[in-house]
Amino acid sequence: MKRPWQGQVEPLLLKTVPRHDPLNPLCPGATRANGEVNPHYEGTFLFDNDFPALQPDAPNPGPSDHPLFRAEAARGVCKVMCFHPWSDVTLPLMSVPEIRAVIDSWASVTEELGAQYPWVQIFENKGAMMGCSNPHPHCQVWASSFLPDVVQREERSQQSYHSQHGEPLLIEYSRQELLRKERLVLTSEHWLVLVPFWAVWPFQTLLLPRRHVRRLPELTPAERDDLASIMKKLLTKYDNLFETSFPYSMGWHGAPTGSEAGANWDHWQLHAHYYPPLLRSATVRKFMVGYEMLAQAQRDLTPEQAAERLRALPEVHYCLGQK
Amino acid sequence: MKRPWQGQVEPLLLKTVPRHDPLNPLCPGATRANGEVNPHYEGTFLFDNDFPALQPDAPNPGPSDHPLFRAEAARGVCKVMCFHPWSDVTLPLMSVPEIRAVIDSWASVTEELGAQYPWVQIFENKGAMMGCSNPHPHCQVWASSFLPDVVQREERSQQSYHSQHGEPLLIEYSRQELLRKERLVLTSEHWLVLVPFWAVWPFQTLLLPRRHVRRLPELTPAERDDLASIMKKLLTKYDNLFETSFPYSMGWHGAPTGSEAGANWDHWQLHAHYYPPLLRSATVRKFMVGYEMLAQAQRDLTPEQAAERLRALPEVHYCLGQK
Ligand SMILES: O=P(O)(O)O[C@H]1O[C@H](CO)[C@@H](O)[C@H](O)[C@H]1O
Ligand SMILES: O=P(O)(O)O[C@H]1O[C@H](CO)[C@@H](O)[C@H](O)[C@H]1O
Repeated sequence: MKRPWQGQVEPLLLKTVPRHDPLNPLCPGATRANGEVNPHYEGTFLFDNDFPALQPDAPNPGPSDHPLFRAEAARGVCKVMCFHPWSDVTLPLMSVPEIRAVIDSWASVTEELGAQYPWVQIFENKGAMMGCSNPHPHCQVWASSFLPDVVQREERSQQSYHSQHGEPLLIEYSRQELLRKERLVLTSEHWLVLVPFWAVWPFQTLLLPRRHVRRLPELTPAERDDLASIMKKLLTKYDNLFETSFPYSMGWHGAPTGSEAGANWDHWQLHAHYYPPLLRSATVRKFMVGYEMLAQAQRDLTPEQAAERLRALPEVHYCLGQK
Repeated sequence: MKRPWQGQVEPLLLKTVPRHDPLNPLCPGATRANGEVNPHYEGTFLFDNDFPALQPDAPNPGPSDHPLFRAEAARGVCKVMCFHPWSDVTLPLMSVPEIRAVIDSWASVTEELGAQYPWVQIFENKGAMMGCSNPHPHCQVWASSFLPDVVQREERSQQSYHSQHGEPLLIEYSRQELLRKERLVLTSEHWLVLVPFWAVWPFQTLLLPRRHVRRLPELTPAERDDLASIMKKLLTKYDNLFETSFPYSMGWHGAPTGSEAGANWDHWQLHAHYYPPLLRSATVRKFMVGYEMLAQAQRDLTPEQAAERLRALPEVHYCLGQK
């Protein structure tokens, strides 16, 4: 962190996104790339991604002729979920009941697509720095016919910990973090947010329920309300850190679904990862490049320092405070 | 790739870097952050990074009190290597003998630091988009007291393939790619460049010797000359792709060094990875974000399409052609 920075500085985002733009395909009433017209939705709105990376009928690559050249069909569906009818809000600027509606939609889409697919990945790319190409508040849902790589690693780790210690890894991990306190960011009746011991991004956090919960649809109404409220607090702290609409990628991981949903997934604990790229200011990011890509992640500040900074930030949004 | 792009566009770099800037700490004769004055070097120049991420005397974190909270000291040294006394050149614009001098320096620093450390990571972050904060042509060398994560994975894969098949994974892999041809970019007497079957970055390549070579210092003079020439061709193609100074992170992987250097590392084959971020143009990059961070990498074009485009590009640099 002592290194002087003469490298890339990110362009600051235009703060003036119009509340409604009839040409924005994510807005209520707008026409999408496939010609469909969006309803005049008032809460969340889920639709098929017009440029899907996964398709239900991807062809089979045929048998492999060599152990080093193996391929399998990756089938699935890609959906987009708008969080709100307005383009000029983000989750931390939405009300707790509005965030609660997003959580309910996440739970429903997990159930709906999880009936068929073993993995339903809900993720949000927020901000141009994270490859988001539309400022309208939204996330994506990609359901796949396979367990993705990262998920397979989480499955192996949680499975092996559970078989050795007889309880879920993330339950014991949460208990330890609640005792040690140094990496905690927020706690509530049902949830906790911490900078994990293994964090690689400067202000990376892990959000998880205190109770053993395997998947989003299992959350009780009280847990959902409490989640909406802790999300609002976390995302407000993030925005307050550099007084900017804080970019990140986030997503949910829970027990696999699909035809194996009934198997024993007791080693799984539901959680969300937040991966924000900023390091020093609203315009200077952490680059995961040379050494990180070729060898190992390395941190510019410790998880404990990051947690301390996040803890100290106000829970009132800098934009709302100014009003 | 059909998706319209309304997202982030990278700032185009200033093309006018002064050849010599007495205030640039990488230039010959300049004063560095620690007060040392650089020699008036004429070829390559190796010095200690003034802001090292690894230090030889990092303290021991002490014994762990819990299986989920284990830490070990990461010790090492970080060096910087300037490729050339001029700031306004890049490897593809340097002559083959000048590139050969860089290769010789890479081999020497591997020997020098490899005498003590089990891993010597040579890597180049090229371009502001890849976190490079100084336009002067240079790379970094980080030697560590441990095998980094990515290296441990390569060690396991190569080891297990060798024990099952009796020959190095990358030797058989190269043989297959030479037969199949569809992913080849360049071949020479001693080297080949291909877009690997498992590539995740749009124009990612793998550069490796045809002969079984475990480490850079083993390369013969003829192999080094040939490497300089194929590197110049590859990097010229890269620059020509979008008529820009093509950003990338690259680095070398070879058999571990240090006190275990004498062990049997026959399963290792020396290779370099090139990871360039650009996707559509000089200013639109591939974002490895949401789905990629939380689930699995996904490509916007196939390795075969990328190889075909790279193969078709001229081997004369667009800047030199215009002169
Ligand atoms: O050492 P540099 O060039 O200042 O820093 C660059 O390379 C490092 C090693 O890949 C990264 O950790 C930094 O994020 C990046 O900005
Ligand atoms: O689908 P989008 O938002 O257009 O695209 C964004 O998210 C995808 C999934 O993480 C990435 O593959 C793309 O690189 C990124 O630009």
